Amino acid sequence: MVIKQFAVIGSARLTDEKVVAISREVGRIVARMDANLVCGGLGGVMLESCRGFKNIDSAGRTVGVLPSYDASSANEYIDVVIPTGLDVGRNQIVVASASAVIVIGGGAGTLSEIALASQINKPILLIKNTGGWADKLADDYLDSRMNSRIHHVDDIRQLPSLLMDIVTMHHVSPGAINSGHNNETNSSR
Amino acid sequence: MVIKQFAVIGSARLTDEKVVAISREVGRIVARMDANLVCGGLGGVMLESCRGFKNIDSAGRTVGVLPSYDASSANEYIDVVIPTGLDVGRNQIVVASASAVIVIGGGAGTLSEIALASQINKPILLIKNTGGWADKLADDYLDSRMNSRIHHVDDIRQLPSLLMDIVTMHHVSPGAINSGHNNETNSSR
Amino acid sequence: MVIKQFAVIGSARLTDEKVVAISREVGRIVARMDANLVCGGLGGVMLESCRGFKNIDSAGRTVGVLPSYDASSANEYIDVVIPTGLDVGRNQIVVASASAVIVIGGGAGTLSEIALASQINKPILLIKNTGGWADKLADDYLDSRMNSRIHHVDDIRQLPSLLMDIVTMHHVSPGAINSGHNNETNSSR
Amino acid sequence: MVIKQFAVIGSARLTDEKVVAISREVGRIVARMDANLVCGGLGGVMLESCRGFKNIDSAGRTVGVLPSYDASSANEYIDVVIPTGLDVGRNQIVVASASAVIVIGGGAGTLSEIALASQINKPILLIKNTGGWADKLADDYLDSRMNSRIHHVDDIRQLPSLLMDIVTMHHVSPGAINSGHNNETNSSR
Repeated sequence: MVIKQFAVIGSARLTDEKVVAISREVGRIVARMDANLVCGGLGGVMLESCRGFKNIDSAGRTVGVLPSYDASSANEYIDVVIPTGLDVGRNQIVVASASAVIVIGGGAGTLSEIALASQINKPILLIKNTGGWADKLADDYLDSRMNSRIHHVDDIRQLPSLLMDIVTMHHVSPGAINSGHNNETNSSR
Repeated sequence: MVIKQFAVIGSARLTDEKVVAISREVGRIVARMDANLVCGGLGGVMLESCRGFKNIDSAGRTVGVLPSYDASSANEYIDVVIPTGLDVGRNQIVVASASAVIVIGGGAGTLSEIALASQINKPILLIKNTGGWADKLADDYLDSRMNSRIHHVDDIRQLPSLLMDIVTMHHVSPGAINSGHNNETNSSR
Repeated sequence: MVIKQFAVIGSARLTDEKVVAISREVGRIVARMDANLVCGGLGGVMLESCRGFKNIDSAGRTVGVLPSYDASSANEYIDVVIPTGLDVGRNQIVVASASAVIVIGGGAGTLSEIALASQINKPILLIKNTGGWADKLADDYLDSRMNSRIHHVDDIRQLPSLLMDIVTMHHVSPGAINSGHNNETNSSR
Repeated sequence: MVIKQFAVIGSARLTDEKVVAISREVGRIVARMDANLVCGGLGGVMLESCRGFKNIDSAGRTVGVLPSYDASSANEYIDVVIPTGLDVGRNQIVVASASAVIVIGGGAGTLSEIALASQINKPILLIKNTGGWADKLADDYLDSRMNSRIHHVDDIRQLPSLLMDIVTMHHVSPGAINSGHNNETNSSR
């Protein structure tokens, strides 16, 4: 199975035009790879990255995983809508659906997605100089288990080759879940 | 927002060639409407309906919402994969993602999806003579709250106009959740 | 580990005094076993069974697993409240928390819990002559996989020994999840 | 409704005897308040805080919310077990069940719980000098929405009055969910 999917996560409200431009360019990069772009389906980084994606003729699609059951709350650039009814529980699904998680700025919700991504072993790519937790996290791992590598991306022109590496070099085996936290329980399933 | 999405649910294992043929035709019907087909992403009715879908040149996509985190467990006809890690919790997401839920045969898992669809007010279309719960359920509602209408479809040639009616006549308002079960709690949110 | 826990599920609104009396007696039966009673935390069967439970001096506790985040929506007889924010997703947690699931009447929500219980291999005990799905289901299994046994209880005086059998004779191995539906994915975890 | 419940979260493996002692004392503090102690049900901080709790004669109970369906994976000091089958999705339930979240050390899983707690407006109490994210987080809020206050607790002797304040002064209204992230969707429910 060779479905390419990347998650784009970040602030739900954007005021800085530079970050708007970066979000759109990240969307275009994912579109050019003919990959699906999975996000939380609402505003800010989610909307702008999908808007950029739709500028490009792509075999991929934009996917919005919503906290509510209300499909109409998805932004206008979403092709596939996944209303979950799980409230913040949708954060888990956004990151579980991706080969890599691209972070632009971001507050508490974004931080929860980064931490959940680490728990389920997904590579995390922080786009630097976009504010929020993308800038605040400085280390290469979230804890001493060194579960999931954090990449610090200073220039988004590095992004295409980084994403390609992750997909082709199998930096992440699909479905590899091995949070040390859950070791006991995984083994017993 | 005008995203068209239908869920196709049913048995994960198929032996009856007639039901295989019906599953594929249901997939083609959804594809011809340029709608997305959402399913549980695994075998049987899920696989055969997606296989039928991919026979048609469509603007829609096939979406597989998986119980595990393992994207590679999706069947080969899936375009967008949503690995959830929620086990049977993914059933809720399959039906929440659809304007209507099409049922072909089906065991306990399918029954849980039918009942959850009813709780969150989604129209249910039982394809008759396909066995399982699609045949066993005879009434028009699951309980006296008459939350969500059950349609009994004797001939799948009726399906396109039924689905079109549901989408265009707004038989279901998007995001209308009103399970009587949860009344107290919805009002307090 | 020897925690005894039983789920009590059923209609959220009760008008029949006989069913109210049965719900309370079921609560007392669970309390006398010094077991925890897990339910959806709201009204009807949930409230009356907890009310009966609290009539008895028991080492067990009543547990209410709520659809919303709102702890104050729990009924007044709940000792431990689990507000989930998962809406109908809480149904999975109610049945997953029990060695056996006791069903009194019930509509669509109850039916979804019965079907989910079957998927994750929990014994189901239908209290007969209480209306709803407790009466409508007539077979011993929900489908041909014969995953989880359905017991038909004509007289609740049979309940204590049936529950004791389930706990002591290990009719269900704790954590035995083997829905045929999810076979592929379980093996890959 | 006046159920008192506090979550205790932190590292699943402990080597530092000082942190073991703090975990046990936190358990005793919760027990003395006759409150329920909710945790992830496994090892480390979860086990040691429950062990401390059980040293005290309390009207409260220890509650373990597990990632798997396997009740037997709960530690031996758990009174009420909630096996969810939701994997890391259980993190949401742990923090949603508490009036306040007490953090001792902690890695990626703990960080996800802190961030989810902030999204759903739960006060967070970091026990300082216990390592991990309890020490790494220095600010009073996770982002500029200032959703949920972070308290820095230098001495656990401060904990009883802090917890009492949170419960009695209604520092948090029960069920107050107002993540700015989800604003659009909450209003539409």
